[in-house]
Amino acid sequence: MPTVGIAQEYIASVMGRMNLDALLFWGLENIRYLCGFTGSDGALILTDRERIFLSDSRYEEQAKGEIQGAAFRKYKKKIEGVAQCLKSLKVRRLGFEAAALTCESYQRLKKELPRVILVPLTDQLTNLRSRKVSEEIDKIRGAIRIASDSFLDALPRLKPGAKEKAVGDFLEIRMKRRGGEGPGFSTIVASGPRGALPHGKATDKAVEKKELVVIDFGVRFQGYHSDETKTVILGKPDGRQKKIYDLVRRAQERAMKAIRPGVSVRRIDAAARGVISRGGYGEFFGHGTGHGIGLAVHEPPTISPRGSGVVEAGMIFSVEPGIYIPGWGGVRLEDLVLVTERGCEVLTYLSKELKDNIV
Amino acid sequence: MPTVGIAQEYIASVMGRMNLDALLFWGLENIRYLCGFTGSDGALILTDRERIFLSDSRYEEQAKGEIQGAAFRKYKKKIEGVAQCLKSLKVRRLGFEAAALTCESYQRLKKELPRVILVPLTDQLTNLRSRKVSEEIDKIRGAIRIASDSFLDALPRLKPGAKEKAVGDFLEIRMKRRGGEGPGFSTIVASGPRGALPHGKATDKAVEKKELVVIDFGVRFQGYHSDETKTVILGKPDGRQKKIYDLVRRAQERAMKAIRPGVSVRRIDAAARGVISRGGYGEFFGHGTGHGIGLAVHEPPTISPRGSGVVEAGMIFSVEPGIYIPGWGGVRLEDLVLVTERGCEVLTYLSKELKDNIV
Repeated sequence: MPTVGIAQEYIASVMGRMNLDALLFWGLENIRYLCGFTGSDGALILTDRERIFLSDSRYEEQAKGEIQGAAFRKYKKKIEGVAQCLKSLKVRRLGFEAAALTCESYQRLKKELPRVILVPLTDQLTNLRSRKVSEEIDKIRGAIRIASDSFLDALPRLKPGAKEKAVGDFLEIRMKRRGGEGPGFSTIVASGPRGALPHGKATDKAVEKKELVVIDFGVRFQGYHSDETKTVILGKPDGRQKKIYDLVRRAQERAMKAIRPGVSVRRIDAAARGVISRGGYGEFFGHGTGHGIGLAVHEPPTISPRGSGVVEAGMIFSVEPGIYIPGWGGVRLEDLVLVTERGCEVLTYLSKELKDNIV
Repeated sequence: MPTVGIAQEYIASVMGRMNLDALLFWGLENIRYLCGFTGSDGALILTDRERIFLSDSRYEEQAKGEIQGAAFRKYKKKIEGVAQCLKSLKVRRLGFEAAALTCESYQRLKKELPRVILVPLTDQLTNLRSRKVSEEIDKIRGAIRIASDSFLDALPRLKPGAKEKAVGDFLEIRMKRRGGEGPGFSTIVASGPRGALPHGKATDKAVEKKELVVIDFGVRFQGYHSDETKTVILGKPDGRQKKIYDLVRRAQERAMKAIRPGVSVRRIDAAARGVISRGGYGEFFGHGTGHGIGLAVHEPPTISPRGSGVVEAGMIFSVEPGIYIPGWGGVRLEDLVLVTERGCEVLTYLSKELKDNIV
């Protein structure tokens, strides 16, 4: 695995700090990250000496072909199989992914392992996948290229009278044709007043002249995601449209300028939020400024007023301020950035300048 | 909501039996089922008198437009907002979805609500969504029609030399064009020896003459899923292909004949498994015979040797025995059935007869 070096170090540190003899991974993204398995069910056990991936018979052949640096063990019932394996390894203090294991699975596991101390890991695992290695950055760049090309394919369909859903569906189909594994989330095409819905999935509403249209789209490629938002206007913007668009764009640029290793996520958020607040629209920007992205569409770090920690070189996250006004509509501009040694590189490349978004 | 009547009765019974003054739903399928919200984050609190759906500002407008029979309350931070609401309702004994709440969320909720008794609900909620009402059955029929038509669109592309992925992608694109919201899972196209992988996602392998090709496909439509598997042969089947196909088909028919209200899921599984075991291939049928389907692709009931309970009128589940032989390939045949008063209705309608699957 490309990620083994960076991940092994991280995991050894967690095990040492928490005095664990084993770690149990349950979430599919972490499992894929740590051993390469791409299927939809399984568990991974790591100790100082052993790395064991467990799954059922459906995935036996696939797992044997995919997993790297781990042995395969088959179970019939997941909890019982995992418990049996932990017993055979004589684990006494087991750390587990508290954000992935449900209360139900925990209860059943605890019942099977009455003598094992189960240690929930939360913040300790937050940044396991957040610094990307070059193979991961390449996959995200690949996803961005597919999504951007598909957006450009779809743009000519965005005309007065076209249904939001027709545009969104066409974009998703193009992403698939261009090699994407599937959309990372339901494509958002929110026109006119619907732009006030930050997650306005495409509907049968027709796009109209003079409307702003928020288009938020992304694709999965080799397991990794892209995520980008353009706001397009059908015709010449009026004064208010121009003012609000400009404000969001300046907020985005200000946040990008604030990014470099060691800067707190709150400071980056505040950079964007300050521009919008000073412009008089603070109450209309209700979400955080950004989120990490990788094997999951949303992953740490969280760039928000309630986020914690600082950003580090190698992190990739979105910068996506927005203004949403009920009854009027909205503007959101979203790019993905890679934190570099001195600042950040903007990975998404479609222009977010207003003049380039008038159709 | 079409489901309110059946669901209210179920929930009232759980609350009474477990002596709860409120229920907390965290899983998106149950939330959608109970109040109609289709977004990707939120929580639902039910008491004898109140029904409150909570989400963040991103979903405020959408939720207000979508939810039925529930009031909307906005939070900034989910756990804190939910805890605040429960405090204002003076809840003392709270049942929660243990299969949806993670250990991390549980710990944080517990910390906010030190005086509330949190009661994990597991089996008590298993069958909440399993008996479908007519609106739900119609949506599943709609999904099946889209998927079946798309399969027929894609079938001419299944020729020697065609890549599995090209066939799978085409099928997914057609499902989208025909009105599907997206594939319910990665389409499986597993040809020749790859048919031995029960979850063999389509790859760049080319399909060859005389190969069996397992195609497992499904689509989401109005939130509900279809799921179906055809096994197609490129040319005249040889003796072994014919024998194994026949065995799987007979296993499927035997299971279908066993279905009627009151019959245990184990007995239905045993009906299919018995045919395959007596045919000498028992060890090559490693998974359960079927699974319920609806808002989730996999939901209760589980039709397997380790499942529990009986089937009831209105349940919809798959019947999908298979034989998987490493190095040789596999056959799986999957239909969806609706349990009726006297037996079952097979909802999927593409033929599973061998003679109709030679291309």
